[in-house]
Amino acid sequence: MPDPRLTLSQHAEMLALIETLADHAREAILPWFRNPDLGAANKACNGFDPVTQADRAAEQIIRATLLQHRPQDGILGEEFGPKASESGLTWIIDPIDGTRGFLAGTPCWGVLIALADGDGPFLGVIDQPYISERFLGGLGQAWVAGPQGRKPLATRGTVELGDAILFTTFPEIGTSAEQAAFTRVSDSARLTRYGMDCYAYALLAAGHIDLVIEAGLNPYDIAAPIAVIEAAGGIVTDWQGGPVGASGQVLAAANPVLHAKALALLQG
Amino acid sequence: MPDPRLTLSQHAEMLALIETLADHAREAILPWFRNPDLGAANKACNGFDPVTQADRAAEQIIRATLLQHRPQDGILGEEFGPKASESGLTWIIDPIDGTRGFLAGTPCWGVLIALADGDGPFLGVIDQPYISERFLGGLGQAWVAGPQGRKPLATRGTVELGDAILFTTFPEIGTSAEQAAFTRVSDSARLTRYGMDCYAYALLAAGHIDLVIEAGLNPYDIAAPIAVIEAAGGIVTDWQGGPVGASGQVLAAANPVLHAKALALLQG
Repeated sequence: MPDPRLTLSQHAEMLALIETLADHAREAILPWFRNPDLGAANKACNGFDPVTQADRAAEQIIRATLLQHRPQDGILGEEFGPKASESGLTWIIDPIDGTRGFLAGTPCWGVLIALADGDGPFLGVIDQPYISERFLGGLGQAWVAGPQGRKPLATRGTVELGDAILFTTFPEIGTSAEQAAFTRVSDSARLTRYGMDCYAYALLAAGHIDLVIEAGLNPYDIAAPIAVIEAAGGIVTDWQGGPVGASGQVLAAANPVLHAKALALLQG
Repeated sequence: MPDPRLTLSQHAEMLALIETLADHAREAILPWFRNPDLGAANKACNGFDPVTQADRAAEQIIRATLLQHRPQDGILGEEFGPKASESGLTWIIDPIDGTRGFLAGTPCWGVLIALADGDGPFLGVIDQPYISERFLGGLGQAWVAGPQGRKPLATRGTVELGDAILFTTFPEIGTSAEQAAFTRVSDSARLTRYGMDCYAYALLAAGHIDLVIEAGLNPYDIAAPIAVIEAAGGIVTDWQGGPVGASGQVLAAANPVLHAKALALLQG
């Protein structure tokens, strides 16, 4: 396996490419958003998990663009099979994170694209096509561009749980034990809000909220948020304080002090 | 009390005025949205209910504009005291519905402005300033204008609960009895989503979702949604099928058939 470390000129190439991928995804997805013809299939056997034509169209154009520009890189996407990496680098894609929110017409779903090496994701984009809003972090950059122009991303300094704004997808997902652990943190927080999917991670990176706690996530759900949040000064782990892994449990925090306090409550 | 019925030229005046009010609110609010200097006071004794400077600034400019153009009309707002009507018409204002979502930086709060006579609200606007998105209904109009241009509003024809997408603010609000009634509907619905505040009513009017069920609402929370949803073909009542009143319970449905089925489950 070759050394995946990037030169400075490759930094610029990767930053330009990830934005091109996000642009292509926007174009592929927007015609389907709030479209009465939108079709949704029932993908999961044990619940409601629609796959839209938009989801597949966006991943296909991203994959085609990557095959053209970075044929040696791996691809891990939600909709199609994995492609092995020959370069040490892998692109991790969730073309529409929050398909249920998408189906309901909300503006809080997003396109997730990340670039990872053996140490994990180091560049990520959370893109909201309907609002024309893009959160990018990694390779020395951390910014949001949208209706208010371009602003730097920086997480907050909140260190008391009693001052913290917490987002989650609970009560929709998680086991009863996970729900109980979540409730311990929620009961200590200033405010808990629900139902934002990946948009919650963007709000954390931008310094508007302090904690996101979720369970049942897949790798393509969290790779881009990890890169964006870390670039903005935050921290993302599983509920044991290690790298997010097969458990699908995620604790994202604005800073290490707040992270430690939330982690202690999650562990009971 | 004079007859409040409006002539056609007054229709045009009221439609222009309600848009002017919403424009002023946008200008007053947007500088405070996602502003690190945003101050929030603890308005309620029994919970977290922030009042922002944006909230008060928007209601003040709306009131000043109404005093100039419609001095004889009443005003019922969230932030300041009521003004009695001498014309039979009353403007009902919630300058920021969803202050918790606003505080957290989400794009799902809204400006609510309605015009009511003795029979209730007959013109309303749900405005989302950050997205530049406006839902207007009443006096022969029903449309949304935003990132995808201007489109007519029309609710859906979904008649089976098992096909319905339901939005709510539960589990955040409501008594345990209300929660149980809500859960009976939620368990029958195709999909339940959380935390959208007034934006859920806009999605219902635009034909993206089918039901909104809430409790604990104030008159200024629901007047504009009633006008917009009714103009789009939907129906909004309390949990007994009557006009939304002091109970604060709301059942909004895309059509009367679906409304009757949800109402039966709410009543056990």
